[in-house]
Amino acid sequence: MSSGVVVTPGNVSVYHGGNLKVIDRRMRVAEVVLRCAICVLGVLAAVLVGIDKQDKVIFSIDKKAKFTDMKALVFLVIANAIAASYSFIQGLRCTVSMLRGSLLFNKTLAWAIFSCDQIMAYVMLAAVAAAAQSSVFGEFGQSELQWMKICNMYEKFCTQVGEGIASSLVVSLIMVTISGMSAFNLFRLYGSNKGKNSGR
Amino acid sequence: MSSGVVVTPGNVSVYHGGNLKVIDRRMRVAEVVLRCAICVLGVLAAVLVGIDKQDKVIFSIDKKAKFTDMKALVFLVIANAIAASYSFIQGLRCTVSMLRGSLLFNKTLAWAIFSCDQIMAYVMLAAVAAAAQSSVFGEFGQSELQWMKICNMYEKFCTQVGEGIASSLVVSLIMVTISGMSAFNLFRLYGSNKGKNSGR
Repeated sequence: MSSGVVVTPGNVSVYHGGNLKVIDRRMRVAEVVLRCAICVLGVLAAVLVGIDKQDKVIFSIDKKAKFTDMKALVFLVIANAIAASYSFIQGLRCTVSMLRGSLLFNKTLAWAIFSCDQIMAYVMLAAVAAAAQSSVFGEFGQSELQWMKICNMYEKFCTQVGEGIASSLVVSLIMVTISGMSAFNLFRLYGSNKGKNSGR
Repeated sequence: MSSGVVVTPGNVSVYHGGNLKVIDRRMRVAEVVLRCAICVLGVLAAVLVGIDKQDKVIFSIDKKAKFTDMKALVFLVIANAIAASYSFIQGLRCTVSMLRGSLLFNKTLAWAIFSCDQIMAYVMLAAVAAAAQSSVFGEFGQSELQWMKICNMYEKFCTQVGEGIASSLVVSLIMVTISGMSAFNLFRLYGSNKGKNSGR
């Protein structure tokens, strides 16, 4: 019995195997840290882009650049806000289950967490890609289409958007890592009859 | 012994459990079909966008729209070509192992397939998001930044790019499904000592 599984009411199982227990505890701690990081960086990115604006007087005309001028930046702010809120809730769940010292082996819950993590990772990555594409147009323009660059006029605005996108990129990479961890937590339940039964 | 695992030389294991065998065979068939679909749709998307161009005479000036005018479309063509080639190779591997009637339980190979599938899914999704963002600018323009829309001039060009992006979107959704399947194939090896040992 090197890795026995005790099934308790409410579909909660606790590993008693030495190695697996240590690995699981480390993974749980890593998950809490990563979800907290998403929370902080997601809020930072949303604030950096969301409050970003710059006024400029060009030929006596007052012009203003703000993040709502590009729909991709609005999408980025919303995606970061959702990712931060979602990670806050998931971080709380992880902390509570870690403090209780239990490992959830409920397949339905594992499927729900896996699905949400996957969706969040793909949404964040799509938001970063779209915002990065918009920023490339802003930074370099597209001379073939007569789309002029704007970052030579709104330097401070573009720098702050760049910082927001960099922060969002880190959020999406962490989200990708977490979605891999939740895939591990879900699919290892299908590894043997033990796992299968513990989920029922 | 409802799902015994026989370990054969070369880290190849064969399930003899009734249900698991049927599920595994169905998953293998589904994987081959999905990888073939990526192959066909990826080539279709790359060709649709890659050969797309349109000439237009505007105020006696001959103007030409081609996919290289937008870097995001070049990225989309390359991503589709890589996805199609990769899926062709993986489809061949799946077909061969299906014909041999064996299920690979080599952890190193499972990790390699999982990693490549994940990278392909994220790259395809990023490519589609960036291309879609560029197309939105082309279709609607961005009046706040004086970026005028171009699709009223190059209708045929834009329609064909749209078809290419739609095809790429399907490719990326299939790639997401396949990356889920390869996560299942990998992480179930960690479900019990059986799975662990069979991979060593």
